[in-house]
Amino acid sequence: MSDSQAQKVESVTILGIGLIGASFAHALRKADLATSICGFDLCAETVKRAKEIGVIDHIAPDLPTSIATSALIVIAAPVGAINDLCEAINQHAKPDTLIIDVGSVKEAVVDAANGLRDDLYFVPCHPISGTEQSGPDAGFAELFENRWSILTPLKRSDQAYEEAVKHAAAIWRAIGADVEIMDAKHHDLALAVTSHLPHLIAFTLVGAADDIETVAQSEIVKYSAGGFRDFTRIAASDPIMWRDVFLNNREAILEVLGRFSEELAVMQRAIRWGDGNALEEAFSRGRTLRKAIVDAGQETSHPNFGRDQK
Amino acid sequence: MSDSQAQKVESVTILGIGLIGASFAHALRKADLATSICGFDLCAETVKRAKEIGVIDHIAPDLPTSIATSALIVIAAPVGAINDLCEAINQHAKPDTLIIDVGSVKEAVVDAANGLRDDLYFVPCHPISGTEQSGPDAGFAELFENRWSILTPLKRSDQAYEEAVKHAAAIWRAIGADVEIMDAKHHDLALAVTSHLPHLIAFTLVGAADDIETVAQSEIVKYSAGGFRDFTRIAASDPIMWRDVFLNNREAILEVLGRFSEELAVMQRAIRWGDGNALEEAFSRGRTLRKAIVDAGQETSHPNFGRDQK
Repeated sequence: MSDSQAQKVESVTILGIGLIGASFAHALRKADLATSICGFDLCAETVKRAKEIGVIDHIAPDLPTSIATSALIVIAAPVGAINDLCEAINQHAKPDTLIIDVGSVKEAVVDAANGLRDDLYFVPCHPISGTEQSGPDAGFAELFENRWSILTPLKRSDQAYEEAVKHAAAIWRAIGADVEIMDAKHHDLALAVTSHLPHLIAFTLVGAADDIETVAQSEIVKYSAGGFRDFTRIAASDPIMWRDVFLNNREAILEVLGRFSEELAVMQRAIRWGDGNALEEAFSRGRTLRKAIVDAGQETSHPNFGRDQK
Repeated sequence: MSDSQAQKVESVTILGIGLIGASFAHALRKADLATSICGFDLCAETVKRAKEIGVIDHIAPDLPTSIATSALIVIAAPVGAINDLCEAINQHAKPDTLIIDVGSVKEAVVDAANGLRDDLYFVPCHPISGTEQSGPDAGFAELFENRWSILTPLKRSDQAYEEAVKHAAAIWRAIGADVEIMDAKHHDLALAVTSHLPHLIAFTLVGAADDIETVAQSEIVKYSAGGFRDFTRIAASDPIMWRDVFLNNREAILEVLGRFSEELAVMQRAIRWGDGNALEEAFSRGRTLRKAIVDAGQETSHPNFGRDQK
């Protein structure tokens, strides 16, 4: 893909002004890529707050208006809203509107986008970045820097669409991200491994810990530095967003969950049998992979994530 | 327990100079609690390096000598070594020697300590702190600050032993830790929840990710910021140390693993059935627990553990 320059967009609409929507707005502004940013959110408090702290320039009076007045629409709502939003976009958007989303699953988004008019250009996107916090106050312009943004374009061969994909890629690069193009199905499997399963495991561990009557919750809190606290970070992520991920990437998640359960059964048996060699061998794989992640610039090299530094 | 002052000890021996042994040596020195620190490790390189960087003052010529010349012996070796070390201590230690350990399981240590002579005072200890790094270079004096150290004293009612427990507690407090007294069996269950199970899950997830042929390892590395990278931190911990934890706390770990697997099956069914309400409800528990951990001073409040701060 050629490295075209991102052009400034007259009017941008952000649909859903949570952590990612707000961060995207900040990043666009920092890169001087938008003349004016309009925001819409189902929660009136959220949109009011976003205006108050300067995340957006205007509040859209309603969804049709926010869609009809934009040259770039950014869908940053939970993935479960994608069909309704595409229906509204199909009805109200101007010809030549560029639409991107930031959803954590992509096949469901591609399916919804395939139903749009030919004069609308939807490029499904997924920036692999975030924090455990939610809402417009959690947003910051640097969220996407040095992180990958995966684009899973529709199967359209018209040149206008190809230009739209280039434009979307240029916007991500302009706000600091690296861009990868991928098939939506493969995206959903790869992210099931690197993101969806880890979240499921973290949510499950927190639930299981709640459930052991002989260990008090106060003890779990006190002794969480033994490892448990690490899991609570992603288990503190937005429940609605994650519900929608699991509802919309069922097949890939069940597939990788099956692999995990298999591996867990093997570990369980090694513990029951007291098989020290098997445990030691299994435990030795982590360092290599972590080193590769640190070397790739996707993780800090400081011990304990640098969290204890004063 | 009364808050007695820690007394300075003439000669301390650290058996096993990894992350925890080295940190303990640094911390003793910083608190001015030791006149002289001697080190012993099965690995000659390690002990040489520890001397070179000032972790220890002398290298013990052999294990019997290092034991015989100490008023305080700190066992910081993997738990699997506890029986052999207790045998050597029983044979060579001077009367009135105080012995502590730092092992992550405590019933096995209590069992070994119960075989010692009556004129030796072994107080089993477990500081709930650490990093994913290993070896003497990873040690630092502040590792135990504001972390809990759990003491699981032997069932001895002689006053000299009670004094020894107070002395051990005073040492931990002097190096910044908070002290909790607990039954060894309960310790092993509580830590199975807050430390051993999380490590097992992290090791297992890393193993399972290695095993999915359709997703390349390079993709796991690239997109690890989606959540996976969090797990690689504790999965990068010392394999030998963790092997010994699982071999020596089998029963409690299998018990909490059973609860986890049960919960995971419930989640799996909710995904398969597309039960959004069940998922949302399960996912909503994480935030409360994380907030409690942050409020208790056991975790940073910065998003992403503060790892992305520049």
